[in-house]
Amino acid sequence: MATQATSIPEASAGTMLNSPTAPAPAVPDTMTASVLVRQGELRTEQRPVPAPGPGEVLVRITSVGVCGSDTHYFTHGRIGSFVVDSPLVLGHEPAGVVVALGPGVTDREAGQRVSLEPGIPDPLSRQSLAGCYNLDPGVRFFATPPIDGVFSEYAVHPAAFCHPVPDSVSDDAAALLEPLSVALAARAAGKVQLGDKVLVAGAGPIGLLISKVAQLAGATVTLTDVRAERLEIAEAYGAAQTFTAANQPPVVPEFDVFIDASGAERAILGGLERLAPRGRAVLVGMGADTVALPVPLLQGRELTITGTFRYANTWPTAIELAASGQVDLDGLVTSTHGLADVEAALTAGATPGALKAMVHP
Amino acid sequence: MATQATSIPEASAGTMLNSPTAPAPAVPDTMTASVLVRQGELRTEQRPVPAPGPGEVLVRITSVGVCGSDTHYFTHGRIGSFVVDSPLVLGHEPAGVVVALGPGVTDREAGQRVSLEPGIPDPLSRQSLAGCYNLDPGVRFFATPPIDGVFSEYAVHPAAFCHPVPDSVSDDAAALLEPLSVALAARAAGKVQLGDKVLVAGAGPIGLLISKVAQLAGATVTLTDVRAERLEIAEAYGAAQTFTAANQPPVVPEFDVFIDASGAERAILGGLERLAPRGRAVLVGMGADTVALPVPLLQGRELTITGTFRYANTWPTAIELAASGQVDLDGLVTSTHGLADVEAALTAGATPGALKAMVHP
Amino acid sequence: MATQATSIPEASAGTMLNSPTAPAPAVPDTMTASVLVRQGELRTEQRPVPAPGPGEVLVRITSVGVCGSDTHYFTHGRIGSFVVDSPLVLGHEPAGVVVALGPGVTDREAGQRVSLEPGIPDPLSRQSLAGCYNLDPGVRFFATPPIDGVFSEYAVHPAAFCHPVPDSVSDDAAALLEPLSVALAARAAGKVQLGDKVLVAGAGPIGLLISKVAQLAGATVTLTDVRAERLEIAEAYGAAQTFTAANQPPVVPEFDVFIDASGAERAILGGLERLAPRGRAVLVGMGADTVALPVPLLQGRELTITGTFRYANTWPTAIELAASGQVDLDGLVTSTHGLADVEAALTAGATPGALKAMVHP
Amino acid sequence: MATQATSIPEASAGTMLNSPTAPAPAVPDTMTASVLVRQGELRTEQRPVPAPGPGEVLVRITSVGVCGSDTHYFTHGRIGSFVVDSPLVLGHEPAGVVVALGPGVTDREAGQRVSLEPGIPDPLSRQSLAGCYNLDPGVRFFATPPIDGVFSEYAVHPAAFCHPVPDSVSDDAAALLEPLSVALAARAAGKVQLGDKVLVAGAGPIGLLISKVAQLAGATVTLTDVRAERLEIAEAYGAAQTFTAANQPPVVPEFDVFIDASGAERAILGGLERLAPRGRAVLVGMGADTVALPVPLLQGRELTITGTFRYANTWPTAIELAASGQVDLDGLVTSTHGLADVEAALTAGATPGALKAMVHP
Repeated sequence: MATQATSIPEASAGTMLNSPTAPAPAVPDTMTASVLVRQGELRTEQRPVPAPGPGEVLVRITSVGVCGSDTHYFTHGRIGSFVVDSPLVLGHEPAGVVVALGPGVTDREAGQRVSLEPGIPDPLSRQSLAGCYNLDPGVRFFATPPIDGVFSEYAVHPAAFCHPVPDSVSDDAAALLEPLSVALAARAAGKVQLGDKVLVAGAGPIGLLISKVAQLAGATVTLTDVRAERLEIAEAYGAAQTFTAANQPPVVPEFDVFIDASGAERAILGGLERLAPRGRAVLVGMGADTVALPVPLLQGRELTITGTFRYANTWPTAIELAASGQVDLDGLVTSTHGLADVEAALTAGATPGALKAMVHP
Repeated sequence: MATQATSIPEASAGTMLNSPTAPAPAVPDTMTASVLVRQGELRTEQRPVPAPGPGEVLVRITSVGVCGSDTHYFTHGRIGSFVVDSPLVLGHEPAGVVVALGPGVTDREAGQRVSLEPGIPDPLSRQSLAGCYNLDPGVRFFATPPIDGVFSEYAVHPAAFCHPVPDSVSDDAAALLEPLSVALAARAAGKVQLGDKVLVAGAGPIGLLISKVAQLAGATVTLTDVRAERLEIAEAYGAAQTFTAANQPPVVPEFDVFIDASGAERAILGGLERLAPRGRAVLVGMGADTVALPVPLLQGRELTITGTFRYANTWPTAIELAASGQVDLDGLVTSTHGLADVEAALTAGATPGALKAMVHP
Repeated sequence: MATQATSIPEASAGTMLNSPTAPAPAVPDTMTASVLVRQGELRTEQRPVPAPGPGEVLVRITSVGVCGSDTHYFTHGRIGSFVVDSPLVLGHEPAGVVVALGPGVTDREAGQRVSLEPGIPDPLSRQSLAGCYNLDPGVRFFATPPIDGVFSEYAVHPAAFCHPVPDSVSDDAAALLEPLSVALAARAAGKVQLGDKVLVAGAGPIGLLISKVAQLAGATVTLTDVRAERLEIAEAYGAAQTFTAANQPPVVPEFDVFIDASGAERAILGGLERLAPRGRAVLVGMGADTVALPVPLLQGRELTITGTFRYANTWPTAIELAASGQVDLDGLVTSTHGLADVEAALTAGATPGALKAMVHP
Repeated sequence: MATQATSIPEASAGTMLNSPTAPAPAVPDTMTASVLVRQGELRTEQRPVPAPGPGEVLVRITSVGVCGSDTHYFTHGRIGSFVVDSPLVLGHEPAGVVVALGPGVTDREAGQRVSLEPGIPDPLSRQSLAGCYNLDPGVRFFATPPIDGVFSEYAVHPAAFCHPVPDSVSDDAAALLEPLSVALAARAAGKVQLGDKVLVAGAGPIGLLISKVAQLAGATVTLTDVRAERLEIAEAYGAAQTFTAANQPPVVPEFDVFIDASGAERAILGGLERLAPRGRAVLVGMGADTVALPVPLLQGRELTITGTFRYANTWPTAIELAASGQVDLDGLVTSTHGLADVEAALTAGATPGALKAMVHP
């Protein structure tokens, strides 16, 4: 089901802001945006500030996390069947401040600090009504061609997907509720609970957050990464023990849950063979197109393997964990960049020790 | 979250129909409706035919099932805190034919036969996004004061909640997908599955449909009712054995699931004590305000008790079961009535042998 | 945990029967058994009739189903790491009549017809206590080297795993409760429930029983097999539609559950791509050692893949389904053979139209 | 199913120890036991030290927690239908040291410190095989008439239910793994998970441990008790906020889970009305025989209510939580007593500030 009226309207990009009910911060007519004009080529442009449609708000973007997929679009010009064949604004982990309200919005206000949940589903689709709106085939998601992302000064977004955050959550942390949501979805998919032994592969930002979330859920976490330096802060993110490529955990079927945040087939197969009977595996990392699934192992131990696609209904818990200090999102930030400097942000991940680059428009 | 734009708009009752895109069945300007003017007093009135707003359709009502709650409003003027303090149209189990489309509706067409799911949630509420839109506190439901029901010739309703039905589903059956949905929700709440032994109390339309649905789900069903004559058609609705008040099943903890469709405390307590360890009880019937829950029994067998509130995401399966002939909804109909005859419809239930009265506007 | 006292004792094979409490059917001292002496070579031998130990019963075997794994041991001399390096009695789907009781058995009696659940776990192992005794690493299973199976006139077995069957279940059907249990475990693993659309690959005895069980659980079943003749009786086993290799179902993500009973990678991959979002796949068939799991598909639709290993706690439901006539197990039998004729039984599966060969000792 | 051979044998009380394979600690022939000869009257007696049967070990008891049920038997002479009509040894939360092994025990050794899981099921019963051995109707449980408990110097017990503990777990803590198991079972029944808001009623040892376990599982915990002084250590046991009788939490449906450890109807009803839609209630506390369950509330919010009966499969996690220091069991101990002093132990709970009395035989 997709109708103009009952689905969330698309942002009326290009329209001048003209909302008589909005308060009066000085919202300019134009804004700067960093645009990927083609593979490997970024350009800052001036674009009209969009006006919020019904149910939407206009947000001044304060911080945007850089994700591996942004980098991949920049370096390869595509991800699978999604091809950058016209100019595209990257960035999909945004936080900001509400500056104007579209018609009908009564539960947000100008000045409110918000974290933007980037995917917009048709809320009346079969999947949305069943509680997994992330799987609605019609979902529109920031920085996925041809939908623009948020490496820009302003963006419009449905109010319902602009989650207010308290002052104890910094702008960067508000942006990083997105990767924290990925971790929360992984935990839920793995049904990680008190007393579980959990093996996590990959100690990048996602792997570290999964490790932390699993530990907060009462699990004992083992974290592995081929890069030893990535494991240095593992303990701060909940890992009870860590292993590198040269020093792997013994092949004993002792883990209740394995969560892959590496995307590497080798890590995935190594995780599966360490799962106990009835163990659950969750594949979060992207990379391997296929994995040579060992069927007799799957059957002999009645393992369960699943994958996650983004997240649904995670922001309330993410906000709670960040606001209470249980998860340190600011500790993941290793560099910050302006809009003119997005290329540096997109390539910062190659630096040893780098975890998360942020863009501050 | 409730905004004008992103929630489903309320019907613009009272507005003349004026939809340039609608095909041309002869939709009149006014229609007949049966109105409960006060407790015990019905009156037919002429009212304007409403126009469908964005995302809505106008439906010519062909059949409406009469529910015990309709009768209760008629005889008592209230149900709990819901009071009929201004004229109200009753009826919330409707089927009809689409006659006009509101703006933006592209996936319905005039002439389409539909079953109307009566509750309209805010699709962006927390509960809706989590998959239980029936529990959205803001849901608007036909024939629940002050929302009018459908004992009338026409009604507007969101297209997404007007489910197309094939020709193998009669008008009456299309209306009775609503009580079938109640039964499907009860089955889901009780997690009734292949091999279960299920005890159902109450052999009215809901109890019979629960019995049938449980049997289709692979359960062996025992059905009880204090009125022996109600059990006569029990076998046709899936019951393997039946019991009356004078002839109760032995008090043996042998049932996996107990579903109450009677609302009677005595039936509920009798069901609980017949549940096996880890047994599940589902309270569907309304009636008892409190039940003297035997805590040591609940604990000693680790029973689980839950209640259902309407249904969510049930229409696709309900349509499939009716269209394939697996559930005989027409067999429940024991009388039909016109709009001038709604009082007879509302009081038909007192007749011995009566199951379901239908109103054909 | 494995102690002599609390685990179920091994059969004291080779000991003369000498149970003063046993009734007096004429149990001989020796019995005929069909022994696989090496790959491809069977021989009937006379062996001592074993005596039931504590908690065990002696069963006169009346019918044994032939399974593909029996055939595989005969033709290949091994299955994976299980090698026939000393003489082995095959057969693990047995039914029979209790003829003697071991010490302490009070809930079985001579003359009772029983179906033997073939795997014997340590009931105090961690897995057994958690309800998945089939995953106890110490389980001993008929006809898995070096444990002898039941192509013989008598066998001892724990009373708790000899399930009494009513007269409405034939000897062959009592034996075939084993493959029915495989199907029940597959249904449970796939959480098949009312309203589901289920795709089953492979129309051998297991695939047919899965199809039937899924239909009894309320699903609409589509069954595929590369051999068109295998699909001829598919409708009798619950399939609503069937497809052959030349005529595949459209690649539409419409199934809630896919169950593979073919073991073929091609069938598995074809099933996965037809799963709806949140679809569940269950791999039951043996064959493929690895399957090239499409990770982006798994993630993009949040599919879940699991495998089953035999079954646990299935006999009560299996007996109910067979005794009530809901599942026709006798209809699967296409040939019967004596102990002298086991080679013919083991190779009968190659005959077109063959489904299940039975051995009647 | 209950046979002498396959069930766990009863302790051969009264038999002299005579195990040739046991090591040689000086185990005396007789021991001191505290015996409840009748309601309100305790007596220390000399009794023969029992010998471990097959699969059993003899344990020298080092610490036993005092439970409210022990006190209830002492003061009332009965709990429900369980009547002390012959002399009974109380105490069912024991820890000790293995001093002798029964025949066939290979995975325990003399000198090993163990925590005794007090209920002994028939491991082949239907409930045990299904994973809920606590619900086996044939379970034998310490200090439940006519089964003696462990206020004595020695006891025999199945090796499988004597769980080894590391040195980081004190004797008292090893004994208190039993109430910790009650808390773990409550958490599991309530499906408490990361992000949940949990309300716990009753700040005795069980309520405090539930509070702690819920917090470790990632929940935010609110704890209430009518006795303000009981809440003083609530923060140390995971409570984020506390309320007394005079100062109740607002009646807002905001909790995901409510766990009652008070047994008081008023607390239970207060908890139910604070549950959010789809909220789960777990009744752990004993006291109320019936609770006036508000059916419309249960239905309108689709609440689920369940009760717990002891625990199953909890010791591994309990040991992990205690050994790692995540749960401070020693902090609950407020008095210790010898066998001659059991009456003081049984009545210590009446002292303000008292939490847990321990008996050190």
